[in-house]
Amino acid sequence: MKVAVVGASGYVGGELLRLLLAHPNAEVVQVTSNSMAGKAVGRAHPNLRRATALRFVPHADLKPAEVTFVASPHGESMTETPALLENGGVVIDLSADFRLRDPALYPEYYHVTHPHPELLAEAVPGLPELYRDRLRTARLIAVPGCVATAAILALKPLAVHGWVAPGPVVVDSKSGSSASGRDSGSAGLHAERSGVMRAYAPAGHRHTAEIEQETGLTVALSCHGVEAVRGVLATCHVPVNRSVSDKDLWKLYREAYGKEPFVRIVHETEGLYREPEPKILSGTNYCDLGFASDPHAGRVVALAALDNLMKGAAGAAVQCFNVRSALPETSGLEFLGLHPI
Amino acid sequence: MKVAVVGASGYVGGELLRLLLAHPNAEVVQVTSNSMAGKAVGRAHPNLRRATALRFVPHADLKPAEVTFVASPHGESMTETPALLENGGVVIDLSADFRLRDPALYPEYYHVTHPHPELLAEAVPGLPELYRDRLRTARLIAVPGCVATAAILALKPLAVHGWVAPGPVVVDSKSGSSASGRDSGSAGLHAERSGVMRAYAPAGHRHTAEIEQETGLTVALSCHGVEAVRGVLATCHVPVNRSVSDKDLWKLYREAYGKEPFVRIVHETEGLYREPEPKILSGTNYCDLGFASDPHAGRVVALAALDNLMKGAAGAAVQCFNVRSALPETSGLEFLGLHPI
Amino acid sequence: MKVAVVGASGYVGGELLRLLLAHPNAEVVQVTSNSMAGKAVGRAHPNLRRATALRFVPHADLKPAEVTFVASPHGESMTETPALLENGGVVIDLSADFRLRDPALYPEYYHVTHPHPELLAEAVPGLPELYRDRLRTARLIAVPGCVATAAILALKPLAVHGWVAPGPVVVDSKSGSSASGRDSGSAGLHAERSGVMRAYAPAGHRHTAEIEQETGLTVALSCHGVEAVRGVLATCHVPVNRSVSDKDLWKLYREAYGKEPFVRIVHETEGLYREPEPKILSGTNYCDLGFASDPHAGRVVALAALDNLMKGAAGAAVQCFNVRSALPETSGLEFLGLHPI
Amino acid sequence: MKVAVVGASGYVGGELLRLLLAHPNAEVVQVTSNSMAGKAVGRAHPNLRRATALRFVPHADLKPAEVTFVASPHGESMTETPALLENGGVVIDLSADFRLRDPALYPEYYHVTHPHPELLAEAVPGLPELYRDRLRTARLIAVPGCVATAAILALKPLAVHGWVAPGPVVVDSKSGSSASGRDSGSAGLHAERSGVMRAYAPAGHRHTAEIEQETGLTVALSCHGVEAVRGVLATCHVPVNRSVSDKDLWKLYREAYGKEPFVRIVHETEGLYREPEPKILSGTNYCDLGFASDPHAGRVVALAALDNLMKGAAGAAVQCFNVRSALPETSGLEFLGLHPI
Repeated sequence: MKVAVVGASGYVGGELLRLLLAHPNAEVVQVTSNSMAGKAVGRAHPNLRRATALRFVPHADLKPAEVTFVASPHGESMTETPALLENGGVVIDLSADFRLRDPALYPEYYHVTHPHPELLAEAVPGLPELYRDRLRTARLIAVPGCVATAAILALKPLAVHGWVAPGPVVVDSKSGSSASGRDSGSAGLHAERSGVMRAYAPAGHRHTAEIEQETGLTVALSCHGVEAVRGVLATCHVPVNRSVSDKDLWKLYREAYGKEPFVRIVHETEGLYREPEPKILSGTNYCDLGFASDPHAGRVVALAALDNLMKGAAGAAVQCFNVRSALPETSGLEFLGLHPI
Repeated sequence: MKVAVVGASGYVGGELLRLLLAHPNAEVVQVTSNSMAGKAVGRAHPNLRRATALRFVPHADLKPAEVTFVASPHGESMTETPALLENGGVVIDLSADFRLRDPALYPEYYHVTHPHPELLAEAVPGLPELYRDRLRTARLIAVPGCVATAAILALKPLAVHGWVAPGPVVVDSKSGSSASGRDSGSAGLHAERSGVMRAYAPAGHRHTAEIEQETGLTVALSCHGVEAVRGVLATCHVPVNRSVSDKDLWKLYREAYGKEPFVRIVHETEGLYREPEPKILSGTNYCDLGFASDPHAGRVVALAALDNLMKGAAGAAVQCFNVRSALPETSGLEFLGLHPI
Repeated sequence: MKVAVVGASGYVGGELLRLLLAHPNAEVVQVTSNSMAGKAVGRAHPNLRRATALRFVPHADLKPAEVTFVASPHGESMTETPALLENGGVVIDLSADFRLRDPALYPEYYHVTHPHPELLAEAVPGLPELYRDRLRTARLIAVPGCVATAAILALKPLAVHGWVAPGPVVVDSKSGSSASGRDSGSAGLHAERSGVMRAYAPAGHRHTAEIEQETGLTVALSCHGVEAVRGVLATCHVPVNRSVSDKDLWKLYREAYGKEPFVRIVHETEGLYREPEPKILSGTNYCDLGFASDPHAGRVVALAALDNLMKGAAGAAVQCFNVRSALPETSGLEFLGLHPI
Repeated sequence: MKVAVVGASGYVGGELLRLLLAHPNAEVVQVTSNSMAGKAVGRAHPNLRRATALRFVPHADLKPAEVTFVASPHGESMTETPALLENGGVVIDLSADFRLRDPALYPEYYHVTHPHPELLAEAVPGLPELYRDRLRTARLIAVPGCVATAAILALKPLAVHGWVAPGPVVVDSKSGSSASGRDSGSAGLHAERSGVMRAYAPAGHRHTAEIEQETGLTVALSCHGVEAVRGVLATCHVPVNRSVSDKDLWKLYREAYGKEPFVRIVHETEGLYREPEPKILSGTNYCDLGFASDPHAGRVVALAALDNLMKGAAGAAVQCFNVRSALPETSGLEFLGLHPI
């Protein structure tokens, strides 16, 4: 498959390239970046120095490909993607521009009126665990945000089974510094970021809408930055309307995800990694799910960990690419992860 | 004042010594440690090399002092403290052994029957913001846990004013590695701890009981370890029974803590440190409080940050010592903190 | 090829398993660990949970395999390896026990008399770049220490060409926390290790002997621990006996390593990664070499970066396994590395 | 003493303010910053929120003060300082603009012709250990670079005693991220900086000239960035012309610095902090010196650790201020440092 990557000089773009250059069925034909136009890929992504001789081209030089991955900043894709679709190819968009089905949410969460609401209805969320069948024929795939993917996978089985009591579900997320990208300014400086527990969005974060859309629950999301480069942990505090045991939760999650190649249930009785831990997921496409019942508070704590650049972005995109291209779903995504790291 | 420190070779003991050796009204007469007996204080606490010529003595050699700070592991103080009190001195206990007023909670949370329930009624919590008057004459002071102090200070005004709706308050805490102490085993290894977002106690953590005792609320506490050495951030997700604005919250917290020397309200409109951040509190005795209203979810997010070894342990103990000794409350606790750090 | 791993519960053992379980030509038949005997591999190495159903067996239960990797602590291999060799298999030893050809160096550097000096003469260093031919038929392969491998690869071409002036070569190494292993005690605690620049061996480090053995130079080695999990950077300060330009150095290193699959020359004019940087080598088998000429001081600075668990241990061992087994040298070692990480 | 701080919004400026606002004999009357003009000091330096009501003024509004601290970027001070001196006050310059006595070195190391060579002869290095008498009456004080201060203090006694053999002294430095300041761009991003061992200047670094000026030795300096916020460790590899024992080195350094308030000799036989370690110096004005003799290589390894914002910049400036103002030299600099941190 001939593929192109738009906005390829950022962290997500680099991760897409790392995966696609090593993918047995992908041929990267173009990578665009206005800021790095003319430079070798290895200059932006030093881990890829020997892996490719490709150079960045300006966005304006983009030519049609069978599949185009869009890793542009939010707001750019919504104007540029329609033209890509007219060329007949598939678009896998990693920005937020086609994630929300309800156009009315764009003014509320992104302060913009969406120029192509008709495409919002068509776009399929890049969540194979929920939309595998629709992804097989999708023309436009919208990969959810990293925190949203984690929370959705943790919450969906509880929501589907009707175990959630009235009242908001609290999602308290922790994420690493790569989520801020390369233009994070002073907020991203090591001297400012090391050792933080930064409540950068205690309320009102944009991923709220995505989680609510996919789960049907009311969500109270608070986002924190902590010292890690990759990784998201979503701690979901779920009020439940019945007594729920560990056994119940094992059964629930096994039924939901037992056959999923990239969802693992992690809930052991001992060990440092007895619950999901993003640290050991760096470079992998896993979303690890764990849980604890808290009868004292009538709550289930559902935990989801992933690598924000992988299952939270580029890895999910390649997984969708595999599904859409009728390839083995794990192609190019077999890395087991490092320990220690 | 002649003071002694029991269990002085650990991290909390070291922080006590750092404060007391520089305190204008304290004279450290004895420091005990069985494991380090005979060694110079500087061997355990390299920052104190030049500050003192004291050496550790075995616990058995402890002599009465005017004030004895107890930084022993949980379970030791409950048997040893009664003898200290009989000698007529004041005991400031930093362990969990006298924190809970209800003896029935010790079997539940600590798997032990408390041998001196009569002292539980007498012990005064080491929270000057709530118990200043009683602390002035207390014989036994029980400094709360670091997560508990943070959550209590954040939640108490909301609870007192009756703004909290039914249903549990979710407290999602993040803490640094020094909270595990020097004997944390492989869980504390740098290679295992760096970059983690470890949900080490998703439910059932012991500090739950302390927070409930002081606030009267039902608490759903989840504890995480993140990569930092010092610091606790308690993100408290509080269901509210009315519409609450930022202005309301400013007023609430100002009335509660406007005159407190070590509680600061931090809630700015911009900047990296617009909400409480433990990173810049290292070495200080501040508890910074912030908040966000989340009308979408009918919630207030109350944030509390502190240094777990300072306001979460040794600093609070010295603040109590100052209150108990009728000294200026900020004596020896004036350090402003470092930035960057 | 049927392979076994002795001492498989440590960090090096875990990395060997990660590589061997995914290796197209290796079948792991046994893994030994006395401390973890009976437990699943995933308990020690959480990244391998789904990759294998193997359980650790006691060392005493070890059976002959075609190739046995020994990742025991220094001192154990020298007594156990002879028996392994008698069984007819190949031994790839990752400890220090067969690294030094001169038996007289063991008392000096390891405080032990070597029980099998005859095997020291036979053992082939696990450096394919220097010993590829001998490795093809070796019975006993001794993988060098991580700092030694880095320094040897950086220094060897300069030594071979006779450019080094009299006087010692200074090797100033920096290494990450995984080099200390899982039993590093309080030295390895996150609270003690974060942010350090620890001169743990300013002089006299054991790797001195290995570097001198392979280069013929007099070496002044100083070892530092810094905050990273993986990675070694060896900064080699080499007095030179002639004027040496960047062009000379490019030529020197290209001739020496231009065809090597795992040695890259990194020396660019701009960019954050213009010189070798271990950070982006995590999980890869590369040794990146760079350099700077310093005519002011009559010196060449040669830089070598690698992942201490990979090219500095397990990766080098698998590379040797490939050479010894007449497999493609890069089998199982193709990982490109992550950025950012 | 009425003091002003020029360029007060950077990290060095913030550290100066932290010290001066708490200094018993200093009154900060003006702080300048063009980029932050009009904003409160606490906006740039969140640790100082409660400590002052000062706001930044533009540089152009600066008025004469008794002592003016200049924390401008290199190149600005050399044009602006002459006017400050004409007003009759004392200038303590923390930039590089008056550090080198030989005007010919400015084109070589800074690519600029110095506009006021006459002031280079007058400027006194901000090293009380070497220039205390001249500092008492100095009009212009030039605080050395952080790496230079560390290396000079470590090397000077060896140089003075004539123990150094011919050939360059290798200084291999490691430093934390705050040394790059707030405008470090992508090089300073957490995602790029965490866990690095970055050889950012393997040869030719500007501090070479300062170290050579003060020691008379030929210096081969290589500079590395590692993961820490504050801190410099200079590992000085010194060829010696005689046999040197630990006892000799103790004597040498004790004689040189035994009475110095901010130089400590750290060289113990055991413990994690047996040699100088910048980690535990954060916030302190100490320069810790250690050493190891390496008879194998005819070398002494001299180690110097300091906090780059303190003894490497602002702390040294305040120490000079104390000397110049006939105050106790430790005024405002008594902080003992934190452990763990």
